[in-house]
Amino acid sequence: MRLSRLFVRTLRQAPAEAETASHQLLLRAGMIQQLAAGVYSYLPLAWRVMRKIEAIIRQEMDAAGGQEVAMPVLQPQELWQESGRWTDFGPELMKLKDRRERNFCLGPTHEEVATDLARRWVTSYRDLPLILYQIQTKFRDEPRPRAGLLRGREFTMKDAYSFDCDEAGLDVSYARILAAYKNIFARCGLATIVIEADSGAIGGRDSHEFVVLAETGDNEVLICSQCGYAVNQERAEMRKLPLPAEPLKPVEAIHTPGQKTIADLARFLAIPTNKTLKAVFYRADEQIIFCVIRGDLEINETKLANTLRRAWNIGRDLRVAAPEDVQAAGLVAGSASPVGLQGIKIVADDSITTGQNFVVGANRRDYHLLNANYPRDFQVDIIADIALAQRGDLCARCGGSYTALRGVEVGHVFKLGTVYSTKMQACFLDGDNVQRPLVMGCYGIGLGRLLAAAIEQNHDDKGIIWPLPIAPYQIHICALDVDNPQIAATADDLYETLQRAGYEVLYDDRPVSPGVKFADADLLGMPLRLTISPRTLARDSVELKVRKEKEFRLVHGDGVLDEVKQALARA
Amino acid sequence: MRLSRLFVRTLRQAPAEAETASHQLLLRAGMIQQLAAGVYSYLPLAWRVMRKIEAIIRQEMDAAGGQEVAMPVLQPQELWQESGRWTDFGPELMKLKDRRERNFCLGPTHEEVATDLARRWVTSYRDLPLILYQIQTKFRDEPRPRAGLLRGREFTMKDAYSFDCDEAGLDVSYARILAAYKNIFARCGLATIVIEADSGAIGGRDSHEFVVLAETGDNEVLICSQCGYAVNQERAEMRKLPLPAEPLKPVEAIHTPGQKTIADLARFLAIPTNKTLKAVFYRADEQIIFCVIRGDLEINETKLANTLRRAWNIGRDLRVAAPEDVQAAGLVAGSASPVGLQGIKIVADDSITTGQNFVVGANRRDYHLLNANYPRDFQVDIIADIALAQRGDLCARCGGSYTALRGVEVGHVFKLGTVYSTKMQACFLDGDNVQRPLVMGCYGIGLGRLLAAAIEQNHDDKGIIWPLPIAPYQIHICALDVDNPQIAATADDLYETLQRAGYEVLYDDRPVSPGVKFADADLLGMPLRLTISPRTLARDSVELKVRKEKEFRLVHGDGVLDEVKQALARA
Repeated sequence: MRLSRLFVRTLRQAPAEAETASHQLLLRAGMIQQLAAGVYSYLPLAWRVMRKIEAIIRQEMDAAGGQEVAMPVLQPQELWQESGRWTDFGPELMKLKDRRERNFCLGPTHEEVATDLARRWVTSYRDLPLILYQIQTKFRDEPRPRAGLLRGREFTMKDAYSFDCDEAGLDVSYARILAAYKNIFARCGLATIVIEADSGAIGGRDSHEFVVLAETGDNEVLICSQCGYAVNQERAEMRKLPLPAEPLKPVEAIHTPGQKTIADLARFLAIPTNKTLKAVFYRADEQIIFCVIRGDLEINETKLANTLRRAWNIGRDLRVAAPEDVQAAGLVAGSASPVGLQGIKIVADDSITTGQNFVVGANRRDYHLLNANYPRDFQVDIIADIALAQRGDLCARCGGSYTALRGVEVGHVFKLGTVYSTKMQACFLDGDNVQRPLVMGCYGIGLGRLLAAAIEQNHDDKGIIWPLPIAPYQIHICALDVDNPQIAATADDLYETLQRAGYEVLYDDRPVSPGVKFADADLLGMPLRLTISPRTLARDSVELKVRKEKEFRLVHGDGVLDEVKQALARA
Repeated sequence: MRLSRLFVRTLRQAPAEAETASHQLLLRAGMIQQLAAGVYSYLPLAWRVMRKIEAIIRQEMDAAGGQEVAMPVLQPQELWQESGRWTDFGPELMKLKDRRERNFCLGPTHEEVATDLARRWVTSYRDLPLILYQIQTKFRDEPRPRAGLLRGREFTMKDAYSFDCDEAGLDVSYARILAAYKNIFARCGLATIVIEADSGAIGGRDSHEFVVLAETGDNEVLICSQCGYAVNQERAEMRKLPLPAEPLKPVEAIHTPGQKTIADLARFLAIPTNKTLKAVFYRADEQIIFCVIRGDLEINETKLANTLRRAWNIGRDLRVAAPEDVQAAGLVAGSASPVGLQGIKIVADDSITTGQNFVVGANRRDYHLLNANYPRDFQVDIIADIALAQRGDLCARCGGSYTALRGVEVGHVFKLGTVYSTKMQACFLDGDNVQRPLVMGCYGIGLGRLLAAAIEQNHDDKGIIWPLPIAPYQIHICALDVDNPQIAATADDLYETLQRAGYEVLYDDRPVSPGVKFADADLLGMPLRLTISPRTLARDSVELKVRKEKEFRLVHGDGVLDEVKQALARA
């Protein structure tokens, strides 16, 4: 493709709203265009990457025994009522009415449709195992769409569903797809780790996530340096060691003028922060939730949301309460206390039981209470683990210490078991002619996330460094001084030669300066750059540079194809 | 693929609701599954066909200079307000609100998004010409989704948009894509005709449709046997010759007991039907429309809808009025008349001016009026051409006679001109640095319709006969008596051999009767069937049958690959 014909326009500056490396670079490289919050068009270069990722996924899913189908976006309410998710899925489920006022949602995932297909078409154990997959557009009305392709509201996913006779069968299907996923990410040229994940609200036994490692990723993965247990921070548990035991002392109010944060308060009282209890306020749907946790710990909002959902079926729309909400609830920010609190739901982290004689707020401006003890001095509605594990915290399994890696979650696999098949009566006849529910697994890869993660992992300050297998083009030719007919002829010739040899080539034939050409080549990130200039022409050679290397060198025209082959092997 | 593992189940009977051949056969062959009215899952065999069609389209669009992108389904209201189509598109536009109450529609087509992309990215004539295309899911809330994949509410489309400097440039882009379309349909193995189409509400200069010829198609194409003009019946005009002139006679009421239809009335009065005027009632949005047309002609609802939209901006939701609507409007069905009618909109076909002294209703049960003449005796709100041209009618261009062919419309191309670019201010700087609106074309192919049309064109009473280039598999092996280990081994061996030779093979390895196997092979429709049975085994041979031929013959095992090659060349 000649760059002069390509539908692309590069930007020198990233738009201010772009926070992450992939978002900035995709915008600067003219690869995506936002249409609405979390809704993007893929322009030709990015779409070529998507198509390559698609092809790799398809090959590996087919090799794993998957059968490709295409399930609809529009899904009727009745189906989602069977699974209970019409309401349970929360506001992320986008809903609409058709012209006859029938309710539909836009599929955010396809467990319901896949289970429906299976119950209509699978009758006997002879039809099993079965793995269906599709590559298809999904919709989730994210509360905070952000970071370009990393968290969108409309996105492309490969989702797969396995159906087996029993748990042993599921284990086999699950292992096959886990292996396929490893192949997929490796073939995309990406370093990933597999981590154990909590299957959370979906239920079922096992769950794993695939994380593309990247310093700039939006996920923190905790890894125990002792036992190797790896887990997504949003799901990580930790050991909370008890503080040295003390006899309970009487509650006592103390004047703490201007001490609003835990750090201020601990300094003022000359105590460690773990001797305080912190109050944090959330708004779950329309209710205020008072959370209390040991002062040295932070709230994990994923755990809190799961806890709220399990206990009261609320919290699908969870956010930190606004100051006016806190005030309206009669709470004194900076001195709020569970002691004496009435009429507000209280959720406590179990860390409040790890010590005695904590300092808490007094629900009175500039006052706190010393020696508060649970349950002597205050009650709570729920005690659960809602604390955020961080690097340095203790591994929940072995008590070792967590280190942390950052990355981007790109795949997630679940053993669903019979959760959906029981609710939706998706059964088969076993060898003894007994009707039993299908045993299911589900498996997802976000293609747009994968593309963005590839950039998060592979870029420098000049631009993208595409892994060869998913690069839009393998080779980028820069022809400097194209008004010189000899340059143009030589570059045209090289372009043709490389294409005939089977390479995908982007050819910068524009009449612009060398500086612009090199900057664009670095930004667009093809693995190999070949430059034709008056200097190379004089030596009957071509300048060759691998994008991820610093050095470039001249190669003689005759040997270009060999040199290209070798260079791409390193790229 | 072994049929024992394939996610498919064939049916002996077509479900009662399936009207057309493709709908019946797709259901019987287990290729699609309905999820809601006009919303289908594609199961593995049909999806393979879609993927092959996709690949052919992509190659030809790329060869025509198209650049592939992917535009979103979710499209904000603001964009559709710029083009005026947020309301103009009517109830087929599916709308929803996001969690922040912002209005979106589900893209039924992408002129707005494509124009928006072009105005953001195209600045100068140097960026032109530009052809963008995508293969993507579209949504239209059809009033009467029907016929399986022929008219769905969610469907896959290849849509393309061309951008040029001027009309001459548009002509070039248009011709390139027209040529690409011809290649696409030919490469799919389908006989199509290109017909001129009216660009209707979209405006612009030229428009063509591609129709896959099929006796069972839902479109009637009229072709002038004299000048060759070919046009879709829903858009065809015709010459309406004047009847022999007569002096006007006075109106006279006549008792016509029980004569409700035009045929009855004409017989009762012993006059030709073209001496009567017929009343037909429609409901356009919420209004009753009284249509009057010469008794021998029928109403063309597409023309009527266009007329209503142009005149009063109504009629997007047009249907024949229900008897209760007619009665509520004070009309006497069977004797309704434009004479003396008040308070109801009247639309007349211009055929009412082709004669004198017509018989019309009297708005009185069992009475009609003789010698009604327009405009002497009645007025109308609009006179326009709203008549349905039929085979035998006279060509609008040359006065020759129309013959008719049936088919399925699978592609449509339009010269849009500057309709969208003017409304949406999508401009470029020309060579003189003058800002001018982009000159656009748009081009669509319905992939699901194409798949269904392929079946409409290629089937018999036993099942589908896939054209080779888009067949799910090229070869279908039937192994009869698979419990015989020699049969199984021979068939397995043939299956491996053919796959190694690069063929796609469906292998019926199920322990079912020969009758079931042959019936399924005919139903599923792969181009070539190879049978291994005790009989062929005894002769060290394979039975070979091309699906579309009647004969089968034995070929010796050694020569199978050569014979397969030759047979597929005929298939």
